[in-house]
Amino acid sequence: MKKAQNIYDNSTFYNEYKEMRSTNLNANELIEIPIIKKMLPDLKGKKILDLGCGNGTMSRYFIENGATKVLALDISQNMINEAKEKNSLEGITYVIDGMENLDKINEKFDLVFSSLAFHYVEDFNKLIKDISNLLNNNGVLLFSQEHPNVTATILNPDQKKYVTIGDNRYYYLNNYNNNGKRLLHWNVDGVVKYHRNFSLTLNTIMNNNFELLQIEESTASKEAIELIEKYKYQKDRPYFLFVKAKRK
Amino acid sequence: MKKAQNIYDNSTFYNEYKEMRSTNLNANELIEIPIIKKMLPDLKGKKILDLGCGNGTMSRYFIENGATKVLALDISQNMINEAKEKNSLEGITYVIDGMENLDKINEKFDLVFSSLAFHYVEDFNKLIKDISNLLNNNGVLLFSQEHPNVTATILNPDQKKYVTIGDNRYYYLNNYNNNGKRLLHWNVDGVVKYHRNFSLTLNTIMNNNFELLQIEESTASKEAIELIEKYKYQKDRPYFLFVKAKRK
Repeated sequence: MKKAQNIYDNSTFYNEYKEMRSTNLNANELIEIPIIKKMLPDLKGKKILDLGCGNGTMSRYFIENGATKVLALDISQNMINEAKEKNSLEGITYVIDGMENLDKINEKFDLVFSSLAFHYVEDFNKLIKDISNLLNNNGVLLFSQEHPNVTATILNPDQKKYVTIGDNRYYYLNNYNNNGKRLLHWNVDGVVKYHRNFSLTLNTIMNNNFELLQIEESTASKEAIELIEKYKYQKDRPYFLFVKAKRK
Repeated sequence: MKKAQNIYDNSTFYNEYKEMRSTNLNANELIEIPIIKKMLPDLKGKKILDLGCGNGTMSRYFIENGATKVLALDISQNMINEAKEKNSLEGITYVIDGMENLDKINEKFDLVFSSLAFHYVEDFNKLIKDISNLLNNNGVLLFSQEHPNVTATILNPDQKKYVTIGDNRYYYLNNYNNNGKRLLHWNVDGVVKYHRNFSLTLNTIMNNNFELLQIEESTASKEAIELIEKYKYQKDRPYFLFVKAKRK
């Protein structure tokens, strides 16, 4: 069994991450969640698989909006503990597991959902193939992940992701077309993510018995920019990519 | 009838353009054409519409590879003259017309093809809708256009598309999410193109009765980079986006 990365059980990382998420003033609340909620299919009576469920906020939302059952996985013990504490509801089962082992699951779902977790997965083709096998016909895959223009860059320690000249940011997009592993500093050193450009991301989905339905790229509302000024740069380089597809 | 831009009949532009295309050492020959040829469906017995056919190189290729009929449109008199002179073959009809008037055509096609012309079209939704109406069921749309990371930028006269620091290029991606008109200098001042980000481009296609089949982003081969060194930056910011879709 493949050992997946589990930075959320690194205590330094987890404490920084909790701090970031402790207010509503973060990119998840202000940018990501509003977009993904608009893309959700009808939830009434649905069985849902929530991959990388984190603290269970969305799993709770699914049940509160009519879903009958949610299987919610996260690789992090810290996250599953928090989810059980804050978002336990009848119909939700929280399990500590990575996304590498989906082929062990013996049931079918109407919706497979994932918020900001797929960029941690090395073998994207296997992931999408496993999801395809777990979905009923016409079942929906909806996920968000970091935007390819964000994950592209490979940095040397002395380099920046962008340079600012006047009021303008110039972005270092090097290796956009070189898909693969990225090592970066996010709260702690050595966080591993995987970059896949637009074409690889979408072709992998289409090649695994899915029809693409909708693609979105993040934007920030006027209200979000008033709260956190740097979100004005969403119009230049969106943080997040959203993909909705239907199993054929 | 909408008046479309016709820079190819501006003599300064056309002379510069002919000069650029006069050798095989350009991005079309070295980067674009090899990718688009790999994406083509089987051409045998097919009726094809070639939008923005330029000098007819691809129309000729279609007939030489088994297509029975090609209707080839270009808005430029210069281009159609050159096409008739160089690439007249039985089965090809060259017509001077823009892509704004496709709803006047009264026949159906198996393939609608366009090389590097869609970024000149203002009303993309109408274009794709018209194409959808012109295709037989299971007919294919295949096109290339400038990559959204290239068309995004709105520049002031004193700004550059990128800054070079050491051996690295940092790209100015401003207004990636602000879709619309772009005025730029390309051989002459005042060339108009239209930027559409990835999501708008793909959603417009999916919303007009198409299933997406394949997406590609340009890369340069080792041989191409040996001929023209700057093509090494294709890995950072590809010039071209390629889309293949099937009418449902």
